[in-house]
Amino acid sequence: MTFAITLGSRIRKSPYFDATVKAGVTHFTVYNHMYMPVSYGDTEGEYWRLIRGVSMWDVAAERQVEIAGPDAEALVRYLTPRNLSRCRVGRARYVPMCDHDGTLINDPVLLRLSEERFWLSIADSDMIYWVKATAAEGGFDVGVGEPDVSPLALQGPKALDVAVDLFGDQVRRMRHFHFHETSLEGIPLVLCRSGWSRQGGFEFFLRDGRYGNELWDAVARAGAPYDIRAGAPNFIERVESGLLSFAADNEPDSSPFELGLGDLVDVNREDDFIGKPALARIAAKGAKRRRVGLFIEGEKLPGNEHPWPVSNNSVGIGSARAAVYSLRLERNIAIALVCADTPDDAPLRVQTPYGPRDARIAALPFA
Amino acid sequence: MTFAITLGSRIRKSPYFDATVKAGVTHFTVYNHMYMPVSYGDTEGEYWRLIRGVSMWDVAAERQVEIAGPDAEALVRYLTPRNLSRCRVGRARYVPMCDHDGTLINDPVLLRLSEERFWLSIADSDMIYWVKATAAEGGFDVGVGEPDVSPLALQGPKALDVAVDLFGDQVRRMRHFHFHETSLEGIPLVLCRSGWSRQGGFEFFLRDGRYGNELWDAVARAGAPYDIRAGAPNFIERVESGLLSFAADNEPDSSPFELGLGDLVDVNREDDFIGKPALARIAAKGAKRRRVGLFIEGEKLPGNEHPWPVSNNSVGIGSARAAVYSLRLERNIAIALVCADTPDDAPLRVQTPYGPRDARIAALPFA
Repeated sequence: MTFAITLGSRIRKSPYFDATVKAGVTHFTVYNHMYMPVSYGDTEGEYWRLIRGVSMWDVAAERQVEIAGPDAEALVRYLTPRNLSRCRVGRARYVPMCDHDGTLINDPVLLRLSEERFWLSIADSDMIYWVKATAAEGGFDVGVGEPDVSPLALQGPKALDVAVDLFGDQVRRMRHFHFHETSLEGIPLVLCRSGWSRQGGFEFFLRDGRYGNELWDAVARAGAPYDIRAGAPNFIERVESGLLSFAADNEPDSSPFELGLGDLVDVNREDDFIGKPALARIAAKGAKRRRVGLFIEGEKLPGNEHPWPVSNNSVGIGSARAAVYSLRLERNIAIALVCADTPDDAPLRVQTPYGPRDARIAALPFA
Repeated sequence: MTFAITLGSRIRKSPYFDATVKAGVTHFTVYNHMYMPVSYGDTEGEYWRLIRGVSMWDVAAERQVEIAGPDAEALVRYLTPRNLSRCRVGRARYVPMCDHDGTLINDPVLLRLSEERFWLSIADSDMIYWVKATAAEGGFDVGVGEPDVSPLALQGPKALDVAVDLFGDQVRRMRHFHFHETSLEGIPLVLCRSGWSRQGGFEFFLRDGRYGNELWDAVARAGAPYDIRAGAPNFIERVESGLLSFAADNEPDSSPFELGLGDLVDVNREDDFIGKPALARIAAKGAKRRRVGLFIEGEKLPGNEHPWPVSNNSVGIGSARAAVYSLRLERNIAIALVCADTPDDAPLRVQTPYGPRDARIAALPFA
């Protein structure tokens, strides 16, 4: 089934919107109240370009929550269970955020722009309200807002070549999650070695939305010798790579532990943070579910539209949250959330809209 | 331009999803992280059915934030600038919510289910985080969560006939924004005289998502003698009626005053509420913008995909946020946000993608 998406003022267009239309975008989703391209109609071509070449993505929907002021560091530490004792200026960190019950409510990347200024580069939930309420009611001396920042991602093994051609040889020395402020043809941006794939690359955090088309065109020109094309966060690659997609892979009450993020939760930190007592209890008791890979047997399946129920000996034990046919493995794979006590060799059954299928647990990442 | 919407686990399907597909839905939007039907492909038919007959809408994306516990009433009062001194059990109220800067962040309908239990039936922003953070950091003794509640709307002049056939004659005595708990063929729901149109009707707050298709079918059967059909919150009718669409009609920094909600802000309340000092300052100084209707001259225009700039003597003064061809007035109309000092008779100009058009201010609602 294919349905159209309605365009209107309630949801925002990205600064790259017109450029993506010119590039032939065919499918959108909505992410942080913005239209975000998902496909340009060539599923296999977009996948292989990411795996073997270089792809450029409109990820402006990855919004920033800026926290600035004397208490900015204290507030950031309070907002995440991760230990940030060594987070320096110019460094990014993956920082799960939980509510007071220890439930994951977002999994942003934190960028420290200065001693007193941070960005939370967020997944799809309105963390600006969470941060504003926490800051105001908790008496933190900070300003919280959404700056005019719109990331463009450059991903794939040839992304480095394109970045070198754009910014010079020094980008070779940038390590993962290092960033700095710079510009391109006068367009202000933050250049970060990061991105939502395991194929390597950069994110250009455009700092003035008026220059979306100009930045897009500059990157497209530099990438032309490497056969760059427009792409989008890639569903096949992300499942193969086991990347967490917030709200897709978790249940509304999932803790970081069941999602494989336990190493980022430090319940022994001396300072307080939101959810600390709840997370300490879950850490002691053990998580109730675990996030696993699945091999699903049989003919090639279409990607799932919603979670598919998973059973073990006819007893429901969870769901396949993201299922796709892997082009590298040439078989059906999935990311699933199952009861923590499910044995690794359990003979599972997945209820797909195309009939039941046998399945077994696989390690993440797949490839 | 038409683009497809991608379906996946990250965004939820409504309990009525399969029923709306059977009914022929063609267009979706995303609202509160759910797919919400927008059109069944018959723009004029859907409109006239709402104006002259009866229409049924999947509005499950209107999520509820439940606040329950000893401090529930105190928290609800703290969350809105509206004076709730006379809100009794079984009554609903339209309650704008603001942040600490006096900016509108949602405009829910509040339902008081018991002395200590409330639902905020929210527009499209994650108020659950705002409410949870405020409750936890502010020390309110409440539980905050999202219950399994999925509204189905019955709207139009014949909605009352359908409701009488379903629930009996006593629904005739229900006044606007009155509600009670009831059931239909054993399906638990809250029946409220409400809905997002000015044509009258009811909302059925389904209280068990497993019965979505059953409730849909029961309503469709009862409505058949009245030629009921599936519809959706109607863009033409809502612009004609001047209904506020949160995030479409406002800017990210709009206060309730500039949106025509000033009467719902009581800065003289004795008790504290979020944004009180900021709202008192804005009330004293006057709002910087005002929400108005526009008549736009010339040929029939398609609905707008994004805000269209509005100028007065070549000076930008705001934007047309929702523009549509009115089928009742047979002319182009819009809801706009313009500088507060724009005279009512100013000769305005709207920059549409189809060329500039003359426009003038009109009173809201249009019809």
